[in-house]
Amino acid sequence: MQSKSRKEEMAALKEEARRLGFSSVSERNDALRLIASGLERDWQAIKEANDEDVRQATGAGLAPSLIKRLIYSASKQREALAQIADIVRAADPIGTPLMRRELDEGLVLTQIAVPIGVIGMIFEARPDALVQIISLCLKSGNAIILKGGSEASRTNAALVASMRTSLGASSLGSGWIVLLESRSDVAEMLAMEDVIDLLIPRGSKEFVSYIMSHTAIPVLGHSDGICHLYIDETADLNTAVAIAYDAKTQYPAACNATETILVHSTIAERFIPAIKERFGGEVAIHGDERVAALIDCIPYRAGDWSIEYLDLSVNIRVVDSLDEAIRHISTYGSGHTDAIVTTSQSAINTFFAQVDSADVFANCSTRFADGYRFGLGAEVGISTQKIHARGPVGMEGLMSTKYLLDGSGQVVATYSGSEARPFTHRLLPIEGDSHA
Amino acid sequence: MQSKSRKEEMAALKEEARRLGFSSVSERNDALRLIASGLERDWQAIKEANDEDVRQATGAGLAPSLIKRLIYSASKQREALAQIADIVRAADPIGTPLMRRELDEGLVLTQIAVPIGVIGMIFEARPDALVQIISLCLKSGNAIILKGGSEASRTNAALVASMRTSLGASSLGSGWIVLLESRSDVAEMLAMEDVIDLLIPRGSKEFVSYIMSHTAIPVLGHSDGICHLYIDETADLNTAVAIAYDAKTQYPAACNATETILVHSTIAERFIPAIKERFGGEVAIHGDERVAALIDCIPYRAGDWSIEYLDLSVNIRVVDSLDEAIRHISTYGSGHTDAIVTTSQSAINTFFAQVDSADVFANCSTRFADGYRFGLGAEVGISTQKIHARGPVGMEGLMSTKYLLDGSGQVVATYSGSEARPFTHRLLPIEGDSHA
Repeated sequence: MQSKSRKEEMAALKEEARRLGFSSVSERNDALRLIASGLERDWQAIKEANDEDVRQATGAGLAPSLIKRLIYSASKQREALAQIADIVRAADPIGTPLMRRELDEGLVLTQIAVPIGVIGMIFEARPDALVQIISLCLKSGNAIILKGGSEASRTNAALVASMRTSLGASSLGSGWIVLLESRSDVAEMLAMEDVIDLLIPRGSKEFVSYIMSHTAIPVLGHSDGICHLYIDETADLNTAVAIAYDAKTQYPAACNATETILVHSTIAERFIPAIKERFGGEVAIHGDERVAALIDCIPYRAGDWSIEYLDLSVNIRVVDSLDEAIRHISTYGSGHTDAIVTTSQSAINTFFAQVDSADVFANCSTRFADGYRFGLGAEVGISTQKIHARGPVGMEGLMSTKYLLDGSGQVVATYSGSEARPFTHRLLPIEGDSHA
Repeated sequence: MQSKSRKEEMAALKEEARRLGFSSVSERNDALRLIASGLERDWQAIKEANDEDVRQATGAGLAPSLIKRLIYSASKQREALAQIADIVRAADPIGTPLMRRELDEGLVLTQIAVPIGVIGMIFEARPDALVQIISLCLKSGNAIILKGGSEASRTNAALVASMRTSLGASSLGSGWIVLLESRSDVAEMLAMEDVIDLLIPRGSKEFVSYIMSHTAIPVLGHSDGICHLYIDETADLNTAVAIAYDAKTQYPAACNATETILVHSTIAERFIPAIKERFGGEVAIHGDERVAALIDCIPYRAGDWSIEYLDLSVNIRVVDSLDEAIRHISTYGSGHTDAIVTTSQSAINTFFAQVDSADVFANCSTRFADGYRFGLGAEVGISTQKIHARGPVGMEGLMSTKYLLDGSGQVVATYSGSEARPFTHRLLPIEGDSHA
């Protein structure tokens, strides 16, 4: 593709984004329903494209975990259709009033939610993620540029072709979706800071880290999930063991699985043998000297506290106080999810106040850190950054704001100088009509 | 300063930021009061340092506008002290609950506001901005790294020395403020993406643009203010002239001053001679052929629509429809502030929905785009980006969020698989106790 036509294509995409931003919710919901029925209609073609991608990937010796993510099965399609139905049912996020303030009589300020504009999505394998993010962008009025992995190129092309055909029958058209060819360099997309307002990478930790360090565009995502579980001196032993077992083993490959268990010295002699027994042979325990004095374990080596195992390995460390546990988390954690098990309300309060992570939990598993479990609806991603959105992010992560000021002829000169008229600055109820 | 000690200093600063984040509001207010009385106590030393900076800058032939910003007069100190008093009175932004949801019985999710962490401030001249931003950071629990312009180095050093002395008597200490030496390269600060969570540059448009394009750290600010005023066919003539005059002339150097007036062809013959008369000889009008057919003006040259004059110059262009005006704004605007003058509610609705700018106004001057006028309290800055904060930004621009999940032993295994227990996902009132 030549650079001139790409530039024109990008200008057109920004204009499509603006138009999508003021479409009605019924137009957007109709388009979502057309997409869903189109995916059913085109199932055979999508399936064949996916079978071929899987065949090629298997032949090329791709990792089984990658192949598993690549398969777009009938059950993944059913889940995708169910998610689209959920997104149709969700409230319209565009135009939601966030604040209303009278500045003076007949001069009312309203802050409302608006789409961000153009979302860039870069993902490995995962054709189901493509369907989900396009649907979320449509509902929230955002245009999208997609760059999928080459291993899923046939599936992605078939899915996008199906959606484009369906959208051709809608009032919104399909100009707001751009699928970059697999042969295009991802670097091209990372350099589009004039076009793309927010990048959402989906894939492995290494992949997301690479994206974050190679673009000037804001990135929604997280590169590390070094999560901690702290067993306080007052913890109930059975609760502590049950939560630790779940936090490590329920799905160890997830970013919200616990990597290090910190144990207060008062309870260490009871908890550590108990969790070792509960883990049985399943989990490899890396312990410091105080752990090694209680159970057989792999001796701690420098650097272990900073490892995201993502498998059935865990660090255990004995600490002498809540404060020491919090310092460990602050030093070695990644600000993702950290939890305390305790029966002390004061310990919960301290942990909640002092641990600076996206998710801070008491008396439950770190594995609850998830947009679906949080009740946010479809998940845009999990963010460990502190700007814009933090933690599991729902559709609100695709929204920005704008201020509307509705006047009746006011000029600033009236409110300036020695005889300045004062502002009233009176907060108004958010719900209610504009004459309140 | 050697790189090792700088690294240790930065690690210490991150720890100070964490500690400041869980300080009590009375500790922070006490520290703010100490800062205010200290600035009064140290007035002579500050004044002498500033006099010397101004003497040197004048000798070096700095622009009068820069010298004016550099002067820290008794009245600027009074304003700074009044702002500190306002900030003391403001509600504590830390811990404000933003959302509460029951996930299941005894498992309650709360999203609260927390400080961002470490704010980096880079500014030209403007010693009063230094006092304001340090006070805002303190109230909002953020640590700060400052880099002032070399022309203000003595004043900045005197102000920071005064504040450090005052803070020495507070429970919070002064370790959360780092003032980089004037001789340090600004490039060092722009590369601190591991330490600084948000950069706030204050200064000229060129200065902010430079910062934005030379760092991977998120930047709060705007580089262009190309604002438009559209006079619709149904506009009241007197209202239109009064607003246009204010929007251009009330303070033309401000980013929210209007640069281009778009006039509907139906009203052009009445409005254009009238605004020409109102401007008198004060304003240089750049007009297209249709404007030139009505009044004497400077003929339009290619590129004029994209100029931010920041002086008593204005573009006038005749358009044939509201849609054409909106397209002009979308093509040439900078997404800062755009206004319509009209008596048609339907035109207001269309303009509000379709103009994608931080501030979209009806029947009032673009000059109202300002944190103080909006009633946001002290202003952190104005943002034309769409991520994190947009438009005039108050203290909320210095805040992030975290999720607290308060459980009673829950594990994810219970909510997974074929016999999964369902979540209740019930929104709870935000005000109210945790037993609701």
